[in-house]
Amino acid sequence: MRFVKGHGTENDFVILPDGAAGLEPDLVRRLCDRRAGIGADGVLAVVERGDGYFMDYRNADGSHAETCGNGIRVFARYLVSTGRAPAGTWQIDTRSGPRTVTVPGDGGDITVDMGTPQPLSPAQVTVGERSWKALGWSMGNPHLVVLDAGPLDALDLTVPPLVEPDSAYPDGVNVELVEPIAPRALRMRVHERGVGETRSCGTGACAVAVAAMDVAGERATYEVAVPGGRLVVSWEADGRVLMAGPAVLAAHGEVDLDALR
Amino acid sequence: MRFVKGHGTENDFVILPDGAAGLEPDLVRRLCDRRAGIGADGVLAVVERGDGYFMDYRNADGSHAETCGNGIRVFARYLVSTGRAPAGTWQIDTRSGPRTVTVPGDGGDITVDMGTPQPLSPAQVTVGERSWKALGWSMGNPHLVVLDAGPLDALDLTVPPLVEPDSAYPDGVNVELVEPIAPRALRMRVHERGVGETRSCGTGACAVAVAAMDVAGERATYEVAVPGGRLVVSWEADGRVLMAGPAVLAAHGEVDLDALR
Repeated sequence: MRFVKGHGTENDFVILPDGAAGLEPDLVRRLCDRRAGIGADGVLAVVERGDGYFMDYRNADGSHAETCGNGIRVFARYLVSTGRAPAGTWQIDTRSGPRTVTVPGDGGDITVDMGTPQPLSPAQVTVGERSWKALGWSMGNPHLVVLDAGPLDALDLTVPPLVEPDSAYPDGVNVELVEPIAPRALRMRVHERGVGETRSCGTGACAVAVAAMDVAGERATYEVAVPGGRLVVSWEADGRVLMAGPAVLAAHGEVDLDALR
Repeated sequence: MRFVKGHGTENDFVILPDGAAGLEPDLVRRLCDRRAGIGADGVLAVVERGDGYFMDYRNADGSHAETCGNGIRVFARYLVSTGRAPAGTWQIDTRSGPRTVTVPGDGGDITVDMGTPQPLSPAQVTVGERSWKALGWSMGNPHLVVLDAGPLDALDLTVPPLVEPDSAYPDGVNVELVEPIAPRALRMRVHERGVGETRSCGTGACAVAVAAMDVAGERATYEVAVPGGRLVVSWEADGRVLMAGPAVLAAHGEVDLDALR
């Protein structure tokens, strides 16, 4: 089976150029096994649909996922770098609907329309001995943002942050811890629900920038430094959030399905 | 650059079929990066030498390493599966000298001559609230073996085991925690010095079997279950230790060196 390995701000993916036929959850899990397989946070199967493409995204554990901001950039980079789609602005179908991407021809940052954020309930977030009131924002999935949690390096995210009251987010919530580094530039760490601390979370970076812009009373462009790189988030006058960031294809080849455990 | 990804009991490697020219430490580190690169515990460069092969093994951090029992099996599997070496018994050159391997033609377990063990000083090993006297054995590198540390699942190896006295192993030591599972069958977990807990350690499995056989007063064949699989260790009458285990090639392809960060 052909594969491509790529990442966006170190959120990494196995791209399957030949579609999702036979892509059972167990096969996804084996492909994403970092030692016995190829290794990745998830799989992006390229499914031709009409005159465009559907991004069939699966989490590393084999489950379906709605969307993934970093994955869409990697998917778009694959399509343009192989000539399957042109540089420019077009749409990718996902489980949460069509997403508009803008892919430059020169390998630079790819921009994704991340939709319109919605405010959610605030809640109390506790990490170790420290506790803050966090702002709630949905980017399709729920986020709690602590805007002034610095110094970030001292925080222990090996255990999930405590969210109170329990009733606020009964299905769990992603938590972003933020410190300002310059005007309109923020640094964040993220604890993703059900996963743990990650190198990057695209929707989390958007939620962080939106929360900060909302507090500042402006629609602007903010840089968000995540552990795996740098994202640029713009909140447009019409309410849409655009996220720009890198997408890298590191390797391609063939995987021996019979050899996966 | 061409690559093959493989593993032995989930100790995984990037094999470079075309030699070690230009293989700077920084390139090794970037190839082994699990998110931005291919991802592995180390690199095995295939270097032609005379009418045989030198295994140029590097750790994921770019440093040179003397030897690696799991890596030799994966290296041998690559050579036989590509027809660069025949099935049967022959030698691979390593930084710690030639190693004899036996590779069956059918994809079954590969046997490696791991040399002759040497006894080392015993020491006290402490994990959490528990403390044991551990047996010291060298397989070229130093090991402390706790033969009756069960139940293993309860042990926290996220912090290095405490070894006392400090003076016993000033350069650090690998620590194996063992529980018996059947006659001549052991289960182990391992904390590798400078690395942390790993899925497998070939020399560690040999040290564990040797320590158990020495206590039992026999030269025999023991099975050692590691987290990533199963190894079979024989201590021969002439003093040599033979280790047999699986070696799997999961994928092959090309990596874009310019895309690695």
